[in-house]
Amino acid sequence: MITEDVRTMQEKPPEALVRVACLQFEPKIGQKEANIARSVARIEAAAAGGARLIVLPELCNSGYVFNERAEAHDLAEELPAGPSCAAWIEVAHRLGLHIVAGIAERDGAALYNSAAVIGPEGFLGTYRKNHLWGEENLFFEPGDLGIPVWRTPLGRIAVAICYDGWFPETYRLAALQGAEILCVPTNWVPMPEQPVNLPVMANILAMSGAHSNGMFVAAADRVGNERGQPFLGCSLIVDSTGWPLAGPASATEEQVLMVDLNLADARRKRALNTFNHPLRDRRTDMYGEMLGSDARRSWY
Amino acid sequence: MITEDVRTMQEKPPEALVRVACLQFEPKIGQKEANIARSVARIEAAAAGGARLIVLPELCNSGYVFNERAEAHDLAEELPAGPSCAAWIEVAHRLGLHIVAGIAERDGAALYNSAAVIGPEGFLGTYRKNHLWGEENLFFEPGDLGIPVWRTPLGRIAVAICYDGWFPETYRLAALQGAEILCVPTNWVPMPEQPVNLPVMANILAMSGAHSNGMFVAAADRVGNERGQPFLGCSLIVDSTGWPLAGPASATEEQVLMVDLNLADARRKRALNTFNHPLRDRRTDMYGEMLGSDARRSWY
Repeated sequence: MITEDVRTMQEKPPEALVRVACLQFEPKIGQKEANIARSVARIEAAAAGGARLIVLPELCNSGYVFNERAEAHDLAEELPAGPSCAAWIEVAHRLGLHIVAGIAERDGAALYNSAAVIGPEGFLGTYRKNHLWGEENLFFEPGDLGIPVWRTPLGRIAVAICYDGWFPETYRLAALQGAEILCVPTNWVPMPEQPVNLPVMANILAMSGAHSNGMFVAAADRVGNERGQPFLGCSLIVDSTGWPLAGPASATEEQVLMVDLNLADARRKRALNTFNHPLRDRRTDMYGEMLGSDARRSWY
Repeated sequence: MITEDVRTMQEKPPEALVRVACLQFEPKIGQKEANIARSVARIEAAAAGGARLIVLPELCNSGYVFNERAEAHDLAEELPAGPSCAAWIEVAHRLGLHIVAGIAERDGAALYNSAAVIGPEGFLGTYRKNHLWGEENLFFEPGDLGIPVWRTPLGRIAVAICYDGWFPETYRLAALQGAEILCVPTNWVPMPEQPVNLPVMANILAMSGAHSNGMFVAAADRVGNERGQPFLGCSLIVDSTGWPLAGPASATEEQVLMVDLNLADARRKRALNTFNHPLRDRRTDMYGEMLGSDARRSWY
């Protein structure tokens, strides 16, 4: 089932709005050709609905739960030459889209849990997941490209993947480099002791990261159960104020979240009052080296 | 009205438990003697209920909304010599308590929005709010004591005050220095656009900070409306998993939150699985200087 949640901010000038879509769907492990076709069909549908920036889940071309490294290796592809990325480049060019899509990347013998960042005129670059979760550590190298920010005609885009969002440093480094929106391809898994009356922790972290940095967050999760691993759904598009604009999506069903964002608001509305601004109020005179480097590594 | 929310983790060995209390109450601006008496009465009641670590709101001896600097100056006092701190030292000694209490501090001509940290054997030290909110900037100096961590027989205690909790750096620096619990005297004010069906943003930030660092958070807010400024209530004690253990308290009424914590869990349970640990997984090889210093200040 695919449903739509479209909200238009009527008070904004139309030329400043970007319709952002998060495509929550269920890739099938190993069925790479079918996953690519499925993703392209969903991209075309979102574009027909007016979406111009489209976020797809983590590892949406390969599936997530690999049995062994060889399986991940066989499913991974070089960027941007491989067939998944080529298909996304074609549809982005044909329909005038920006796409951020999770992909199993191979670079020589090294595998990365990556996202391809694509614009209407072609491939823009790669994000490689910096914080690997669980058995991903057996298959992938940790990201080695930092947290790039892409300047696009739509606005400034940064990318994080799943467990990256557990680290406030991810949001901070994106915002400090000017990102207006953090696009999050993800395969969220359940966290222990989730209360039924509260948002899932993945959503809480996204809201917190958006609020503390005055930055939009658009997270596209997958659904389904793969080789015994359940995924969380609950895709979410968060305002730069930290409050949800669309979602959380279903925990179990495929769903499209769409909302019109004025990405400039991430900069225009960042000040909280006459005195306060969440980035400028940082006490960089006091934080010291412990936050950013191993120079003063703690003993935790 | 004072109510109690006591939850005992029965499965833990009793010697490892610390009963923590957050005393949500309503200080009255300028009524310093009455505020001190009120705070001591509430401390005694919490101690009679078994509390051993007690957190009081921000500026709980003075009130919050000063008309001018001179008013703040007249209400502030030196630490630990002043009458508020002396009263808390006395009750901590008499009843064998640790107390973290928000106080208007004067050091020479400089004023600080501070917290007194007190143990059964006397004054332990001062925390000075590092991130000043709104018109506090007209009255107080920004904190100049960093984020100290106190080693106590109960466990390792760090302190943050209100807007400090908007900065993930606060939680991170406390946790990286070994804090097991972050005590938060606060005077939370409403954030714009709060949806009715979600926790207040202050609670979301506390849950996120606890989860991302595997550290308990105990926040004692005030209630009431002072010179037109409403306060939020919703005091909260958060597990090191990030989930609430007690609260949120009432948005309008005085209330005591109490819960038994095994503070060692902040260290014992920090690992999320075989591979992942929220502090050790930090990519300090990649974050660089932007996070912690002005050395590579961004242009935001």
